[in-house]
Amino acid sequence: MADVHFADRLIAAIEAKKTPLIVGLDPVLENLPPMYLNRVGQAQSPACADCIDAILEFSLQIIRTVAPHVPAIKINIAYFERYYWEGIEAYTSLIQEAASLGLLVIGDVKRADIGHTAAQYAQANLSDPDFADLEGLIGPDAVTVNPYFGIDGVAPFLDIAKRQNKGLFVLLRTSNPSAGEVQEIPVADGRPLFMYVAALIDSWGKDFVGNRGFSGAGAVVGATSGEAIAQIRAAMPRTLFLIPGFGTQGGSLQDCARAFNADGLGAVISASRSIIFAHRDKQFEHLKPDQWTQAVEQAVIQSKAQIAQVLNL
Amino acid sequence: MADVHFADRLIAAIEAKKTPLIVGLDPVLENLPPMYLNRVGQAQSPACADCIDAILEFSLQIIRTVAPHVPAIKINIAYFERYYWEGIEAYTSLIQEAASLGLLVIGDVKRADIGHTAAQYAQANLSDPDFADLEGLIGPDAVTVNPYFGIDGVAPFLDIAKRQNKGLFVLLRTSNPSAGEVQEIPVADGRPLFMYVAALIDSWGKDFVGNRGFSGAGAVVGATSGEAIAQIRAAMPRTLFLIPGFGTQGGSLQDCARAFNADGLGAVISASRSIIFAHRDKQFEHLKPDQWTQAVEQAVIQSKAQIAQVLNL
Repeated sequence: MADVHFADRLIAAIEAKKTPLIVGLDPVLENLPPMYLNRVGQAQSPACADCIDAILEFSLQIIRTVAPHVPAIKINIAYFERYYWEGIEAYTSLIQEAASLGLLVIGDVKRADIGHTAAQYAQANLSDPDFADLEGLIGPDAVTVNPYFGIDGVAPFLDIAKRQNKGLFVLLRTSNPSAGEVQEIPVADGRPLFMYVAALIDSWGKDFVGNRGFSGAGAVVGATSGEAIAQIRAAMPRTLFLIPGFGTQGGSLQDCARAFNADGLGAVISASRSIIFAHRDKQFEHLKPDQWTQAVEQAVIQSKAQIAQVLNL
Repeated sequence: MADVHFADRLIAAIEAKKTPLIVGLDPVLENLPPMYLNRVGQAQSPACADCIDAILEFSLQIIRTVAPHVPAIKINIAYFERYYWEGIEAYTSLIQEAASLGLLVIGDVKRADIGHTAAQYAQANLSDPDFADLEGLIGPDAVTVNPYFGIDGVAPFLDIAKRQNKGLFVLLRTSNPSAGEVQEIPVADGRPLFMYVAALIDSWGKDFVGNRGFSGAGAVVGATSGEAIAQIRAAMPRTLFLIPGFGTQGGSLQDCARAFNADGLGAVISASRSIIFAHRDKQFEHLKPDQWTQAVEQAVIQSKAQIAQVLNL
């Protein structure tokens, strides 16, 4: 168990790696480099075991490649659930590998339920395992959670976060096209719903602030509109933002920049497909197939430089 | 793959078993009958493998006990995720057992994410597996999903449901104390948010209506207020409701009854702890420990009778 508040650990890691860029691990089988795809074979129904083996090996290489460059990795569990129990075992082992290389790990699980069920989800997805036969395994440093149940769905995650120096990021404004269908519904006072949820998250995290002034209860804020990001930032100054979608989901860096304070702190920016599938990018087509991790590393370095320029790091 | 629309299958099962009661499987280790607890031992950190073995055996007995009496079982995946990959393997095998006994299975997974990630969740949690080494395994007949992302988070589940004659239940109004924090926020026209979400769900399911007049896109409606249930029912006449919490979460049967049409159709009512942990109920304390399934069976029969009386079945 970590002995330092999650927000302080995340900020220290951002400062050490000199970037708020984190890498999102959302591996889709068909985008893997050819040597991994070859292992799965051309059958119309491949074996689940072969698929997850390929994805696990690929993901381990990603983690080893990006570990020197970024403060954290965000692993989206959906891409592992897809491979049933074998996928969950792989997800767990990736957490161990990332942690052993000094990366903070955000488990992108987006769970929530009513209170006593949320407690099961929090134990399963955020806590370090508490079983004799899983001794030594750790859970991620933080997870994403869904606010639709109100505080009941979030409190069990907060409890574990406070006890184990972990964190959470509550979904606030997501970056998908239809996010507005619910999140931008105008509420009675004229604000969009997400501003109301911002106030809730701010209140949930206010007694969980670390030494650096940020709460262990963060918010997921999509990079879809600079206006919205600025509005949310003003409403919740103690909240760390997790901004997904940099590089592919349409977010501009200028929009993202509005989440940051003058000292360059306040958020992490997650890039997924533009990094992990960089071998498919035209600019790296001169590399040989077995040099695919060089494309990944170059993509990370480029993204860091772009972000540093805009944020004046 | 089923060859009949999910809503029609569910209604046929309700008619065959003469009840809208379904059993919620939310097994918590410490509430298991003594013979299962004994297997886990008294160690402060038991082995995960021992815990999930006990829960799996218990859950199989529950399924076999209730199968002759109810149309469906709702399995909450959180209580299995708690046991990591072994828990997911157990969850999958419970789906197979329930289906083999003729029960419909609702996977209570409450997933959602942005579009391409939601597609992974839908494939993992709703679809029949598509891997050569998992051939013969099936997914649940329906799952619960969270509406916070709008249609993007729901559409991949709808797509699979339509292709495989499966269903979904979108969270609308949950039964936890803090549900109102988000779900009852007054929107600009004065309605609570959940009524706005009701209109969304109604629109999402309107082209997916079966022969019996109900959509394969249902809604989770907590049994917390008869007023709210009646209001929601009036707004979405084609929607099947999944009403959790009967017996323990404070819902009254009179409240639940307002979800049903005059013909006694329109919803399923889920009872969890009052059934699966019936051996802890004072009225069954005369039973020997190894007669615990008799308590479960009696509790199901009693609950069916209570519901039949109120609904005039």
